Amino acid sequence: MTPRPPAQPGDPLAGIETPALVLDLDLFERNLARMAEDAARLGVRLRPHGKGHKCPEIARRQVAQGAVGICCQKVDEAEVFVREGISDVLLTNQVVHPAKLSRLAALARDARIGLCVDDALHVTRAGEAAEAQEVDLNIYIEIEVGQRRCGLPVGPGLVPLAQRIAETPHLRFAGLHAYHGSAQHLRTAAERTAAIGAAADLVREAITLLKEAGIDVPLVTGAGTGTYELEASSGLWGEIQPGSYAFMDADYARNEAESLFDNALTLRATVLSTSVPGQAVLDFGLKAVAVDSGPPLPLSVVAEVLGVSDEHTILAQPEGAALSVGDRVTLQPGHVDPTCNLHDWIVATRADRVEALWPISARGAGL
Amino acid sequence: MTPRPPAQPGDPLAGIETPALVLDLDLFERNLARMAEDAARLGVRLRPHGKGHKCPEIARRQVAQGAVGICCQKVDEAEVFVREGISDVLLTNQVVHPAKLSRLAALARDARIGLCVDDALHVTRAGEAAEAQEVDLNIYIEIEVGQRRCGLPVGPGLVPLAQRIAETPHLRFAGLHAYHGSAQHLRTAAERTAAIGAAADLVREAITLLKEAGIDVPLVTGAGTGTYELEASSGLWGEIQPGSYAFMDADYARNEAESLFDNALTLRATVLSTSVPGQAVLDFGLKAVAVDSGPPLPLSVVAEVLGVSDEHTILAQPEGAALSVGDRVTLQPGHVDPTCNLHDWIVATRADRVEALWPISARGAGL
Repeated sequence: MTPRPPAQPGDPLAGIETPALVLDLDLFERNLARMAEDAARLGVRLRPHGKGHKCPEIARRQVAQGAVGICCQKVDEAEVFVREGISDVLLTNQVVHPAKLSRLAALARDARIGLCVDDALHVTRAGEAAEAQEVDLNIYIEIEVGQRRCGLPVGPGLVPLAQRIAETPHLRFAGLHAYHGSAQHLRTAAERTAAIGAAADLVREAITLLKEAGIDVPLVTGAGTGTYELEASSGLWGEIQPGSYAFMDADYARNEAESLFDNALTLRATVLSTSVPGQAVLDFGLKAVAVDSGPPLPLSVVAEVLGVSDEHTILAQPEGAALSVGDRVTLQPGHVDPTCNLHDWIVATRADRVEALWPISARGAGL
Repeated sequence: MTPRPPAQPGDPLAGIETPALVLDLDLFERNLARMAEDAARLGVRLRPHGKGHKCPEIARRQVAQGAVGICCQKVDEAEVFVREGISDVLLTNQVVHPAKLSRLAALARDARIGLCVDDALHVTRAGEAAEAQEVDLNIYIEIEVGQRRCGLPVGPGLVPLAQRIAETPHLRFAGLHAYHGSAQHLRTAAERTAAIGAAADLVREAITLLKEAGIDVPLVTGAGTGTYELEASSGLWGEIQPGSYAFMDADYARNEAESLFDNALTLRATVLSTSVPGQAVLDFGLKAVAVDSGPPLPLSVVAEVLGVSDEHTILAQPEGAALSVGDRVTLQPGHVDPTCNLHDWIVATRADRVEALWPISARGAGL
């Protein structure tokens, strides 16, 4: 059951129950427009990632502004997005379990579905599922370009895997998936340029290897908010997959760069307790914010975060402007993707009012 | 919308889609029975905490074995538990927002409801909500006993707050809430004994202060899985609130102690990729496991965890027994409470079969 929303349309901001994820619609809409313009300027297809927002309303707005479709990471997410009207979904991950592949293939009756592989078993099982469902799937080989997670190293394994895809009925070799996730968070522009330069060299080598074997690479897809301009400018990538740009977060804010995008998503909290001298305890913790990229950053007060536990975040009392029980505090999440996954609703606001409640329908969709 | 369950009753373990939280019913039932016996032996009331499991089926089983009721941290959680048949709920936290207090008070028509306070504003607002709903609420003063989070320091503020509760229509001063959360995870028995000894001194002092003002303390409630025997043996606490004992986790396993309780809850995962030499990538990450107490601990293989990102966990390949794509791995979550909150289902198993799927109905219930 979906928990109740923290507000209703028309509520003033002060009426929002906390903790709540609050979206500034003016900033958010500007972020979406700017990315659409930038992809057009760079001459690449835009396929925003939906793993961060997990919100069909946002995916529909991205597609309405020219995105070719969206990316996701899980079959459950793909089901939500297709059911909610997204007709082109790329699963930028591997899938092994036959029941999941069967569900993914079933979606291809209503939508264009892409999937990444880096092993022969992925190809075999995807082929079986596609055949059983009598659909075609677009298969991308994920190559290792510096992230060191999933992805086939560029080398002798590449051509046989592409041939295996091409020879499997109902599978179409759609190209290469080349995403350097850790490069997004390198702090200096020089580091990011070097990382994506090295990734581009590997993409170029992979295309050459495949071409020499007579295999055309229809598309290279990849790139995130921190680096997409580099991939797009390389002339190799034809499609970019940024996700964080819609909201931004405290981790991205640490990158040295002029960003086109503004922080549009905040966490609203309330002071629960000030009984222990020198501190103010807020009404949320690890179940409402992810701390893998550090604690949330207070925006409405200058205060150090002393700790985050399951249901509480402790702030040092700000000098000269002590917080009282019932005061409200606005914070920026450290890492927006796993934070959104902890919430069921985005409270969409404009000026000082709640305009809409958007369900995070793919929240928890983890299979 | 609740995501689909990862299995069906009767499925073999290998049929469970991953990532999934899997409960060993034999171990779990033994944990529940042992805690019920131990509370009886120690002569204290048992009120297990539901913030960790968030699962009404488990709460009902705890009550069926003699627990007086359960604890929770959020009004949303209290609503779920009362709706699912739990008739005595203590919210071991403060509540400030009037709309939340109104919902909490409404529950008191069907259940015995308790609430913690440490500030006059909590009392005022709780009183207003109870009066509007025409119900009575049991109010506990949370005192600071070493956790340094919420909780009034034992001192001159205590008596006036208790008097204020006693003078507020529809509120009943029910006693003291004294919980030393951080003591649960002190590694040596000597450290835990010292911490709870200091907490007991503060409880004793608080009772004396109140008694001198003519105020009786009907009950002291508190204590978790790591220390409950110490609180219960002090003769001060009349009610204990352990939660983790039902499942246990990797963090509790680091305590130096013979535990009565076994690790009953594991995370099941599947190897997605082995393309990068020396590592195996599993099909879950930060959206399926909390890492605030460290990464999950592989149980079915001896392998180092190299990293956890949004949807992936990278293991170093075990020496001599390399994992292949499609292999399944069992892990123990580092911290069980925020991990359960990431899942919608507990897959309850016995021997080699799925026996039941239990919804984690209060998952995400964060208001």
